[in-house]
Amino acid sequence: MLLDKTGAVLGDAESSDGIGTLSGGHEAVFQRVVATWPKTPAIMAGMVGSRQGWREAAYLACPVSPAALAAKILRFDTVDGRPMAIVPGLMVRFPEHGGDVMRGEETQIVGLVQREPGFTGTAILPGTHSKWVRIESGVIVDFQTFLTGELFELLSRYSFLRHSVSGSTDELSGLPDFELGVRRTAVESAPFLAAIFAVRARQLLDGVEPTDNLAYLSGLIIGGEIAAARAGGRLGSRGQVRIVGSRSLARAYRNALSIAGHASQTLDGGELVRLGLFSLALSSGFLS
Amino acid sequence: MLLDKTGAVLGDAESSDGIGTLSGGHEAVFQRVVATWPKTPAIMAGMVGSRQGWREAAYLACPVSPAALAAKILRFDTVDGRPMAIVPGLMVRFPEHGGDVMRGEETQIVGLVQREPGFTGTAILPGTHSKWVRIESGVIVDFQTFLTGELFELLSRYSFLRHSVSGSTDELSGLPDFELGVRRTAVESAPFLAAIFAVRARQLLDGVEPTDNLAYLSGLIIGGEIAAARAGGRLGSRGQVRIVGSRSLARAYRNALSIAGHASQTLDGGELVRLGLFSLALSSGFLS
Repeated sequence: MLLDKTGAVLGDAESSDGIGTLSGGHEAVFQRVVATWPKTPAIMAGMVGSRQGWREAAYLACPVSPAALAAKILRFDTVDGRPMAIVPGLMVRFPEHGGDVMRGEETQIVGLVQREPGFTGTAILPGTHSKWVRIESGVIVDFQTFLTGELFELLSRYSFLRHSVSGSTDELSGLPDFELGVRRTAVESAPFLAAIFAVRARQLLDGVEPTDNLAYLSGLIIGGEIAAARAGGRLGSRGQVRIVGSRSLARAYRNALSIAGHASQTLDGGELVRLGLFSLALSSGFLS
Repeated sequence: MLLDKTGAVLGDAESSDGIGTLSGGHEAVFQRVVATWPKTPAIMAGMVGSRQGWREAAYLACPVSPAALAAKILRFDTVDGRPMAIVPGLMVRFPEHGGDVMRGEETQIVGLVQREPGFTGTAILPGTHSKWVRIESGVIVDFQTFLTGELFELLSRYSFLRHSVSGSTDELSGLPDFELGVRRTAVESAPFLAAIFAVRARQLLDGVEPTDNLAYLSGLIIGGEIAAARAGGRLGSRGQVRIVGSRSLARAYRNALSIAGHASQTLDGGELVRLGLFSLALSSGFLS
């Protein structure tokens, strides 16, 4: 994304190169993507700062304020002299149990705090690995990662339940069976590991259609995530709930939270990345 | 398995044909397996009685006593006149949420009750789909299925955690990291969906070896099953706990239960199948 000095978007470029599928060195790929752009300073976040990335930007331990994150930004120059910056990821440490890590999402949280200064509450970033982030007065206190999206994929594609579900995963959350699933795990507190077996039983005993069952499974899993996060104190009375993500996924989570009795607002993830990167670039002195 | 009139074992035969991979009709496969045996009556249990099986023996709704199960045994003859019997599966119904089903395990429970008349307590049948069965005075009250084994397989082989684990799944439960994992979910009550992310973080932040991490993941999952079953009242003060299964899996569950503070005894699953089938054959009048 190419921005002007006020942070307004001038252009956009995408590459299908990911951390697992890089076609060449990091710098070569970068130069190819921005080949037609002016040689402005560039700021990056996410897996580009991992051990397998371009340069390693070590994880910062929570709690972390946006200012503390800005102070630890990694800076270097490309071979042809372009100033570069990488935002570090964040970690939470649990003695004996490793901890938890994020890369990229921290930049969206900075964007959220930039948009709502002094924010207190919970930010949920749903996805393959959903992040629940506690924020107090604009400081990232801690976070927890749930394997929700990946588990939905594994169960619906590779488990024995694959014979009981089918259809598109878009817009499942409007279906009645999505609500039924959310209620099962988030309201009736059925244990997730057992509740999912009912997907098979519903087909076997009640002839439920595979498309309805996919919505049910989605509801069970998102409801299970909400129940677990709530049990861990991540949906307390303090502060508000923001969901940061793509439109359809953010809506599914807002619906599920509403069924479970929690109000929330959705925010566009791409917009928060832009806001977060721009504000970090300025506050770190990388841009002036 | 070929038994004499007292239930003693005279012979044993196995086939790699399963419900998904049957090489020919059910009767042809059966005749091939027992070709050299005398033409005694034969009693069967499991998927052979499913809709895709040899003959469908409809599920009985719990609670079910061994006598009630015996009364519903399906009987027919092979083309060459051999008397055959199939033990029905069991079901529990949940309004709106399908229910739960088992086929085959009910026969092991009958064997358990045959061995310990009037048994009251919980039988755990660990496996791909673990069953927790509540038994009161020898009657199967209800049961719940957990996808523990299948999830362990999916996570260790197909999820992003596969890069953080490796090694054989046998005898994991003796390793210190198995206990650490069980404690995390069954004692500290960390939510399973989030706790498993630590497998990756342990590798990334603490350099934990993949073999130790596999034991940790196994502990987390079995511990998560125990925590969920306990929350559902399946490990109350009433009655005893029996684990029915293969040696290494039964030991893993006994270790995990012990770490979580519950005493249990292990029983050999194959032996209970034999006991259950023989006692059902007699009490139903199929054999006299």
